[in-house]
Amino acid sequence: MRPYLHKVQYYETDKMQLTHHSNYIRFMEEARIDFFEQLGFPYHRFEAEGILSPVVRVGCDYKKPTTYPDIISVSVSVAECKKLKFVLEYTMQVDGAVVATGTSTHCFLGKDGRPVPFTAFPEFYSAMQKELNK
Amino acid sequence: MRPYLHKVQYYETDKMQLTHHSNYIRFMEEARIDFFEQLGFPYHRFEAEGILSPVVRVGCDYKKPTTYPDIISVSVSVAECKKLKFVLEYTMQVDGAVVATGTSTHCFLGKDGRPVPFTAFPEFYSAMQKELNK
Amino acid sequence: MRPYLHKVQYYETDKMQLTHHSNYIRFMEEARIDFFEQLGFPYHRFEAEGILSPVVRVGCDYKKPTTYPDIISVSVSVAECKKLKFVLEYTMQVDGAVVATGTSTHCFLGKDGRPVPFTAFPEFYSAMQKELNK
Amino acid sequence: MRPYLHKVQYYETDKMQLTHHSNYIRFMEEARIDFFEQLGFPYHRFEAEGILSPVVRVGCDYKKPTTYPDIISVSVSVAECKKLKFVLEYTMQVDGAVVATGTSTHCFLGKDGRPVPFTAFPEFYSAMQKELNK
Repeated sequence: MRPYLHKVQYYETDKMQLTHHSNYIRFMEEARIDFFEQLGFPYHRFEAEGILSPVVRVGCDYKKPTTYPDIISVSVSVAECKKLKFVLEYTMQVDGAVVATGTSTHCFLGKDGRPVPFTAFPEFYSAMQKELNK
Repeated sequence: MRPYLHKVQYYETDKMQLTHHSNYIRFMEEARIDFFEQLGFPYHRFEAEGILSPVVRVGCDYKKPTTYPDIISVSVSVAECKKLKFVLEYTMQVDGAVVATGTSTHCFLGKDGRPVPFTAFPEFYSAMQKELNK
Repeated sequence: MRPYLHKVQYYETDKMQLTHHSNYIRFMEEARIDFFEQLGFPYHRFEAEGILSPVVRVGCDYKKPTTYPDIISVSVSVAECKKLKFVLEYTMQVDGAVVATGTSTHCFLGKDGRPVPFTAFPEFYSAMQKELNK
Repeated sequence: MRPYLHKVQYYETDKMQLTHHSNYIRFMEEARIDFFEQLGFPYHRFEAEGILSPVVRVGCDYKKPTTYPDIISVSVSVAECKKLKFVLEYTMQVDGAVVATGTSTHCFLGKDGRPVPFTAFPEFYSAMQKELNK
């Protein structure tokens, strides 16, 4: 899988003259969307079937500051994939140095707000299992 | 009408160590929502009736920089109110000095995406006319 | 300590029609800034002395969705305060129901980028110790 | 000049399930930064010389809604370039249809906060004049 590239924008920096910490959570979302597109399961296809995929938990460790105009390379991997939740891990790098790492936990909800097991989408579930074992 | 107060947050500043210019457009939205609540017509009530109120045009003139932890006082007034569009004007001040002025233009759309005249909500239209003549 | 109130803004919602998960990280910052003001040590006073206080780690658990125009009440407490790092805990509630919990870890850096022990600010350190033991 | 491409992110949408209007102001900044890089005068080079380039005025007309995962193509042109201010125009398109147009006005300030004429950077000024006459 190709890492996702995010160029830090001016509006993503703050008074400390560094990328504001909340934005890394957004970079993780951008990379996650890209990861699922590369996997062949773009998020908007699930949306079209009435599936929502809320974030259940998120975490980020900040190692080194970044700022405009750094280009952050985000690698995504599947850390866990059970029937009702999956966990992704993110490694964010600038010029080969790790600047932050993160994790996010997700589930699928149907139109009625109830959890939908990933096994309801066998090809997706199988692709996730393959990624998990990489 | 009471001005709306927005305290500039750290995440709203940028590398120039000032409030990022895009955020004033958001302060205008916050003040607009507050203005309609004060007027007795909270936006979410229109939403509940299936009305969307998209922004058609927006503009902002930046006069003086602001930054965290400034408190910006935003006054809203009705500059124009026809059947199919209204224009609001915003004056943003810190400690009595104007820091920015703005305008925004809005319409109402129904569920089918078609324009809905404000006269479909006679009490709202009449309240807007009163504000216009202030 | 008085909880911090944040009204969810329209621009903080997303296509799922809920508050976007990244914004809770920002609400935590707003509440943290307010917490230190209530404690008598506003962050901008540290900034004026050349101290930066970067976020080292952040985490959030999402329990229930929120959306515009919910008012989120954020309670902050000190979970840990050593010489070189402190950890804050956040409980976010709407109408008495917990919607999210979070933690953030912080240090102090001087102008040279080196860690500054909180004991360099004895009154601040002592106030934090008192909060820790509450 | 190559148009700048921005993929609408999930966090840039709102409860109306469309791109929030404030984000177009940010897309304009992204495109502007890219425009100056293509012109051979990246903004961070001015910053390194102590020049700030605040936004003096901004405006945007919204023509058609966009949403995640649309790709917005932003074309930038120089509408005016005097000694102390320049005006840029933006045309934003999705699949060949104009979704929004915008303008932004800028000046240069030195470390002392005073205006710096663009003619202090003759190669930049000359490149801007060439773009103006295109």
